[in-house]
Amino acid sequence: MRHTVDFLLTDWLHISALTDRPRFADHSAETFSQVLDACEKIARDKFAPFNRLVDTEEPRFDGEKVILPQATQDAWDAYAASGLLSAAQDYDIGGMQLPYTVELAANAFFSKASVSINASMLSVGNANLLMVHGTPLQQQVFALNEFSGRWSGTMCLSEPQAGSSLSDVATRAVPDGDGFDADPLGPRYRLKGNKMWISAGEHELTENIIHLVLAKIPGPDGKTIPGTKGISLFIVPKKLVDTEAKLTGERNDVALAGLNHKCGWRGTTNTLLNFGEGKFKPGGQAGAIGYLVGQPGEGLRCMFHMMNEARIGVGMAATMLGMAGYEASLDYARQRPQGRPAGPGGKDAAAPQVPIIQHADVKRMLLAQKAYSEGALALELYCARLVDEQHTGAAAAAKEAALLLEVLTPIAKSWPSEWCLEANSLAIQVHGGYGYTRDFPVEQYWRDNRLNMIHEGTHGIQAMDLLGRKVVMDGGAGLKLLATTINTTIDRAGQVAGLAEHGATLAAALQKLGAATKAAWSTGDPQDALANATPYLQAFGHVVLAWVWLDVALAAQAALAEGRQPADFVQGKLQCCRYLHAYELPKIDAWLAVVAARHPVCRDMQDAWF
Amino acid sequence: MRHTVDFLLTDWLHISALTDRPRFADHSAETFSQVLDACEKIARDKFAPFNRLVDTEEPRFDGEKVILPQATQDAWDAYAASGLLSAAQDYDIGGMQLPYTVELAANAFFSKASVSINASMLSVGNANLLMVHGTPLQQQVFALNEFSGRWSGTMCLSEPQAGSSLSDVATRAVPDGDGFDADPLGPRYRLKGNKMWISAGEHELTENIIHLVLAKIPGPDGKTIPGTKGISLFIVPKKLVDTEAKLTGERNDVALAGLNHKCGWRGTTNTLLNFGEGKFKPGGQAGAIGYLVGQPGEGLRCMFHMMNEARIGVGMAATMLGMAGYEASLDYARQRPQGRPAGPGGKDAAAPQVPIIQHADVKRMLLAQKAYSEGALALELYCARLVDEQHTGAAAAAKEAALLLEVLTPIAKSWPSEWCLEANSLAIQVHGGYGYTRDFPVEQYWRDNRLNMIHEGTHGIQAMDLLGRKVVMDGGAGLKLLATTINTTIDRAGQVAGLAEHGATLAAALQKLGAATKAAWSTGDPQDALANATPYLQAFGHVVLAWVWLDVALAAQAALAEGRQPADFVQGKLQCCRYLHAYELPKIDAWLAVVAARHPVCRDMQDAWF
Repeated sequence: MRHTVDFLLTDWLHISALTDRPRFADHSAETFSQVLDACEKIARDKFAPFNRLVDTEEPRFDGEKVILPQATQDAWDAYAASGLLSAAQDYDIGGMQLPYTVELAANAFFSKASVSINASMLSVGNANLLMVHGTPLQQQVFALNEFSGRWSGTMCLSEPQAGSSLSDVATRAVPDGDGFDADPLGPRYRLKGNKMWISAGEHELTENIIHLVLAKIPGPDGKTIPGTKGISLFIVPKKLVDTEAKLTGERNDVALAGLNHKCGWRGTTNTLLNFGEGKFKPGGQAGAIGYLVGQPGEGLRCMFHMMNEARIGVGMAATMLGMAGYEASLDYARQRPQGRPAGPGGKDAAAPQVPIIQHADVKRMLLAQKAYSEGALALELYCARLVDEQHTGAAAAAKEAALLLEVLTPIAKSWPSEWCLEANSLAIQVHGGYGYTRDFPVEQYWRDNRLNMIHEGTHGIQAMDLLGRKVVMDGGAGLKLLATTINTTIDRAGQVAGLAEHGATLAAALQKLGAATKAAWSTGDPQDALANATPYLQAFGHVVLAWVWLDVALAAQAALAEGRQPADFVQGKLQCCRYLHAYELPKIDAWLAVVAARHPVCRDMQDAWF
Repeated sequence: MRHTVDFLLTDWLHISALTDRPRFADHSAETFSQVLDACEKIARDKFAPFNRLVDTEEPRFDGEKVILPQATQDAWDAYAASGLLSAAQDYDIGGMQLPYTVELAANAFFSKASVSINASMLSVGNANLLMVHGTPLQQQVFALNEFSGRWSGTMCLSEPQAGSSLSDVATRAVPDGDGFDADPLGPRYRLKGNKMWISAGEHELTENIIHLVLAKIPGPDGKTIPGTKGISLFIVPKKLVDTEAKLTGERNDVALAGLNHKCGWRGTTNTLLNFGEGKFKPGGQAGAIGYLVGQPGEGLRCMFHMMNEARIGVGMAATMLGMAGYEASLDYARQRPQGRPAGPGGKDAAAPQVPIIQHADVKRMLLAQKAYSEGALALELYCARLVDEQHTGAAAAAKEAALLLEVLTPIAKSWPSEWCLEANSLAIQVHGGYGYTRDFPVEQYWRDNRLNMIHEGTHGIQAMDLLGRKVVMDGGAGLKLLATTINTTIDRAGQVAGLAEHGATLAAALQKLGAATKAAWSTGDPQDALANATPYLQAFGHVVLAWVWLDVALAAQAALAEGRQPADFVQGKLQCCRYLHAYELPKIDAWLAVVAARHPVCRDMQDAWF
């Protein structure tokens, strides 16, 4: 994978051009590469060897503490020591001022080595949010201690009765007595409620855990505002701290109500947490102490600020599981002798068996995995590059990048979740019966990956976000910008022998996508349009990936012509592009047909008919 | 599900017409129904409650015995007591002379309740094989004691180095001294070798285990014949028995070498067995004692005799996992409140949440599951009905049924394995995060189902069997017969309002399938044709299911018109037909395009390019 990462960053995304910008001026292609080297090594030494261990030794609660394998502690310590938690932060708070693109690529090695040990994303997202929306003291006390790895962070959004529907969160926050708004750490509230699916919600890996919690502040009538408008955001530390970030010795009223036992991703503790249920009584009073972040009612907006990066992170995790399965099955296919190729003269039963990589159907399963996982990798890095553009580009470019990112994020999250899961299934299939046993790593990758279509917004939520919001906002400006971007690639492909035909099929696909988008919305009724939002998401994703692969193929061919990449490597990329255009892109017709027809069969289905 | 089973057997397959045949003359619709009632009850009481238990308490070896949960013993005992092991056998050996169709439907309830407790299929297949190829004494001693449930059976085909490529089995069988061919139980050999993936290969559920083992008999030069021609079949009992079926007290040299630890299907012991490795020395000599079945070199032919039914059995297991997930997620969707429907006026955040079954995307996921699992159920029962026709029909009809069965068996095995697995993934998705936990049953169904694309001939093997053999044999007679059968349905649909359009799309699909078949073979080179055998299998399966659903819809509509089925029930079937034709059938274009083009991208892929 490393070669492909380097190629994508260097030959495709020209990442070193970022070093012309003031923020990254101290960096160079070499420093970027050194970061990747270091992460690759830590991932190989401290994460990969323990991936099966954390699957079999799930977190358990001994009545007082959540117990994790020592390997998880060692991995966390090594990760924190690497400085990667604050990789993108300013020098003056101890950061490395790395582009997000490089940070994401560096983190990819950890996800690939062990996705469920690598639970750092939430801490970084939590701290990043505070760097934008927190007060200077909140940043100093909470964010900085998360970036250092001394403490870790969570995101507490869902509740047992409110998952996809966050507007229904029932956790309540009331002012903590007179002078509640004079606390230097922020307006102080008492929270009461239950939060579900909280990853890393309880453990002993770090000295403290900083929960970011969505809750509603009741009005004078004791009622909360329905919908998302009533949601506010709070910092709720597991252990109370002072303005110097020292533990006060008092436990906040955040209690583990239960561990979730999952199908995969078992190395990460996932919890149901009770806030303010009375297990602890900080200051002798009921309720978990929380400090307001930003303004009341702005909680979800603050949270969504981090959503693009969180979703790119999930997409990258799915991608790396796909990549891990691809590499494992490639390795197996090269070594496993089985059968003999069919030939016009039949088979010579007396000949030795051949490695299964020589069978066309096995090559198909490997090529599909390669096209899925390397294509998804390219997409995630491309999106990360847009994040960097949004943050450090010139104004017009930054605005464009932000717009494109809005449209691409649902794909960056959903496409790898679906297709790198399929890649993992193919990795099992390549292994035959062995792949179905726990003696080989691929069944775990498959189990781990199944989560990604669910968390951080389900597939269905991504689909509604895309068709219901992203492609129609600003009069369809995002979709137009994407089309313009894709057409640039098509134009370039038109000049290149062997790729021009793919440009033509992509142009046709793009046209169909646009037509289906219009047809879906032609009645103006969201119920008509959104009934087939998921097939739309799938088709959209395949068009995006056909474009990504064509653009990557152009870069690969140019790199070959200029002697920067070896022929075999480039052939592999070209073959992926061909595979995606021949085997995958044509699938959009079936998906778009129902979208364009606003097909009512699902919507019309009645409960009594099931 | 029961209502659908009854409808398919009665209104669609007219199963009671079989009672006109002498073999089934004592039966009636009522006796068939009573069998299903009894099985449904045992499955509900003795299997379903323990499905999670057998997932968490895997078989373990204590150094002497393989330990299974008591629930597995209770389930086996109840199953054996039901008489279902010999359901299809003659009255005079204690059977019920039930049609295979009814036997399969009855077994479906056990697979749905707990697929991995329900490991009876191998015993029945083993005994059935002996009833065809064994000597009268072999039948008396071995088969009859398997039918009674006193003993159980296995199928020992694969070896660690020979899975898909059975021609490479290395287990050897040599005559057991002078007079080896005078043993009343059959010519006596000594076997030595290792057998992999042997389900129910070691346990204490039954007094004895009867292994059917493929092995090669070396020639006078000590060499074995390469390829499948050299394979013979042997009965190798775990414990030696006499001609009265009494245990002699001596252990045969069959030893457990290891238990396989699987991703799912954990209730079934799966083993690596050593034959003749010297752990036991029956008669003081080295080698496991085995009795030849049939003629030397005919082993694989004998085994393949049972293959169609074994593959239908796997297809039904996959189907029932899909059905179990469908029912669980339907139940969940009816009870889980989450979100509010989108409307032209937006959402009313203050309104109570609605059950998720009201969301179009959830209905899509439920309808897809229903179409996959009920469609697969119909296909399996249809194939079972062909088996009955083959065995009890008039000569011409029997021949036709056998031919059609040859073509349909790869679909009966592969289609549910792929699409009912997808159904299980959708069942998880309907549950959201809860579906990913082990507190709900759906993640286990998904894990269990992943096996079905692997065992009894992988997906790739089914694909090569279909495109490489079944559709070209006898000048394509099987494919022609299938087309004729499908066209009959299309003609009938042409007369029915609301279904005629589906007939037309099916006719077009059938035409494309035929054209792609021809184009694939147009060069006559198997490598050209078979490089895309898997997409061909997928397209073929979807065409078959579109036909099955259209035919079922015709039956449903007729039943409604004649007042035999309620309107809601019939609407559900019609909606599935519409779903399959609108959302699924169009997928064949992408699959068939690469088949027809003999697309070389996978075949051309080189090891060095990966």
